[in-house]
Amino acid sequence: MTELDLAFVEGGVTAPFGFMASGVCAGIKKSGRKDVALVVAEKPCPAAAVFTTSSMAAAPVIVSREHLAEGTLRAIVVNAGNANACTGAAGVADARAMAASVAAALGCAASEVLVASTGVIGVPMPMDLVLRGVAEAAEALDLVAGEDAAEAIMTTDTFVKTTGVAFEVDGITYTVGGMAKGSGMIQPNMATMLAFVTTDAPLSSASCDKALRSAVGRTFNRITIDSDTSTNDMCVLMASGAAGGAEITSHDARFVEIAAAIEHVCGELARMVVRDGEGATKLITVTVTGAQSEHDAEAAAFAVANSPLVKTAVFGADANWGRVAMAIGKSSAAVDQARVRITFAGILTCDGGTAVAFSEEAAATALAEDTVEIAVDLGLGVGQATVWTCDLSYDYVRINGEYRS
Amino acid sequence: MTELDLAFVEGGVTAPFGFMASGVCAGIKKSGRKDVALVVAEKPCPAAAVFTTSSMAAAPVIVSREHLAEGTLRAIVVNAGNANACTGAAGVADARAMAASVAAALGCAASEVLVASTGVIGVPMPMDLVLRGVAEAAEALDLVAGEDAAEAIMTTDTFVKTTGVAFEVDGITYTVGGMAKGSGMIQPNMATMLAFVTTDAPLSSASCDKALRSAVGRTFNRITIDSDTSTNDMCVLMASGAAGGAEITSHDARFVEIAAAIEHVCGELARMVVRDGEGATKLITVTVTGAQSEHDAEAAAFAVANSPLVKTAVFGADANWGRVAMAIGKSSAAVDQARVRITFAGILTCDGGTAVAFSEEAAATALAEDTVEIAVDLGLGVGQATVWTCDLSYDYVRINGEYRS
Repeated sequence: MTELDLAFVEGGVTAPFGFMASGVCAGIKKSGRKDVALVVAEKPCPAAAVFTTSSMAAAPVIVSREHLAEGTLRAIVVNAGNANACTGAAGVADARAMAASVAAALGCAASEVLVASTGVIGVPMPMDLVLRGVAEAAEALDLVAGEDAAEAIMTTDTFVKTTGVAFEVDGITYTVGGMAKGSGMIQPNMATMLAFVTTDAPLSSASCDKALRSAVGRTFNRITIDSDTSTNDMCVLMASGAAGGAEITSHDARFVEIAAAIEHVCGELARMVVRDGEGATKLITVTVTGAQSEHDAEAAAFAVANSPLVKTAVFGADANWGRVAMAIGKSSAAVDQARVRITFAGILTCDGGTAVAFSEEAAATALAEDTVEIAVDLGLGVGQATVWTCDLSYDYVRINGEYRS
Repeated sequence: MTELDLAFVEGGVTAPFGFMASGVCAGIKKSGRKDVALVVAEKPCPAAAVFTTSSMAAAPVIVSREHLAEGTLRAIVVNAGNANACTGAAGVADARAMAASVAAALGCAASEVLVASTGVIGVPMPMDLVLRGVAEAAEALDLVAGEDAAEAIMTTDTFVKTTGVAFEVDGITYTVGGMAKGSGMIQPNMATMLAFVTTDAPLSSASCDKALRSAVGRTFNRITIDSDTSTNDMCVLMASGAAGGAEITSHDARFVEIAAAIEHVCGELARMVVRDGEGATKLITVTVTGAQSEHDAEAAAFAVANSPLVKTAVFGADANWGRVAMAIGKSSAAVDQARVRITFAGILTCDGGTAVAFSEEAAATALAEDTVEIAVDLGLGVGQATVWTCDLSYDYVRINGEYRS
């Protein structure tokens, strides 16, 4: 990845030129919080998206897949509080009605509007509230309302997730901004949760698609909270081109730099999602090196990151590396016990597949930090991968045992 | 499966003729509880085993695989309190020393002794304690000590797991007995945990192997507590032949009935393991029918049974069928949303892929039971499978967050 000089910028999806957004309270969430968001480009622009791989995909996913077919979008409408999943043909009609109402307000085609929903599964959409919310959101569109939109897509999230970077390529300053929401049902195999990324770089539709897929593969597809995959996941990229410059195809030298910035923004958002995982108290970084392939490294890292025993050990501040050994052992990665080296929170705990004496006191200190790194060297090759997850706490059980989310 | 008239018998592994057992306190467990068990046949007899598929297999697994190569065993020695895993060449030497000491006490070959260990990973075996325990256990061998042995293989188990059945085939009464231990790191892909089954039926080595693999495939390989697979799992069957009758090969008509009894005993033990899962308050039965294949049914059932969101919902007595829909959606099974039917604790909650109105009161009553059945009909074919799991409670987090197991 190119070393780019990336400067953090505020504003989320409205940080790049050419985008407006809004977030309003439509009454779909019982809490009365913001629950309808719009992200709108000045004019139809190149876009790409990745969707959940679930065979129980929600109605908005079904409709949005259709609308993205031509690689052009004008707007994204999102509601929180109801997932519009397991709602049958009526749900699909409701998702179409959402797109149509946005199209009417903006004067564009319904097929240029992407629809996303998040919330409870299996409950019909309260369309009177939703449509009134869409109308209000269209009225509220603003060049600096990225944070409002980010707030309106939250469900059990405890903080708003936005980020953005500005950087220069060939004398032009480009910006990439984004927002995301978690925070349960987070598992690889595609986008995981909702994430919306905007840029004012003049990417073509094809280069949007290439940049997004590459970024998602190494960011959103490498996080896991509870190994569960939602019916509604999607990650969308829109490129307004408003910063100027000639169109950037994926063969363009500038493409590598733009793609790196997009991956950076996706990575930041992905780590925010994990840090805000349901009940999470710590961010866990699992890095596997020395695997026979990147695929093996990813499989081993996910086995560690998804292990409830590893996650509870981190919650309990216990450098229980035996559970890491167990997890890589059950993964599909090629492993030679005698070459395995495990570093837990910066402390070498296992070398050549056997225990290394370490200070429990030093381990306890290292594990008190809010980020814990687990590193495994398989000693077999050059494959490597990093996966991000969070610990498993009492609060995960409380949140999911007591709340119909 | 043949409908056999199976009568419950006490005694666990010593219920069948031809076996002695013992369980003694060797001081390996800090609690001072029993921690060394022996199961000994009168004479070398046909046997079979399935072992963990982990590539980090523990020393006793490595040694036992060798010893089982000829399909004959005289004894099984088990210690709890130390897994002898991630212990390198020294660990393998220790496992061999355990087999040798049993062989010396019984006057048999070390290769006729199977070794199993369970407990903490990565700590050298306290061989002085272990060998003294083995000597004591050999002294204590008894025809009715199956329960003592079952007690000595426990770790975080909260109750002793033994069962047995007697049944008549061609005028001869045969008995199958067994014991098992859980209760963390329980996940499919082989035996899962330690389980030892004995019978006095005159099975050949090949028919032992066939009967055991078939039984394990539908019992121990269909339970899951936390999706984690131990480095030490094994399930062993020994057939003394002491009840009499001609040798039973796998082509024999009698084989079907003996195999059914073995599957019954394995099923009982497997469900005991799940019911005693770490922190479990409820046994969950997940049955998927109408799948395109048995493989699809198993994949969908495991996706539901391993979902932390489903497991916390059951803990919270919430008929949250949307999480079941999510879980089957993320599985590899072929699914047509419009045909999906979900019954949660006996209550139809989803039909044709959409919500069915149901009484929350009736659901709360049904979910207060200590066994909860989740049934999914995919409506596509005749494939079906049942998987057993338990709920995910605060105590799972407490047990694994606070205890180095």
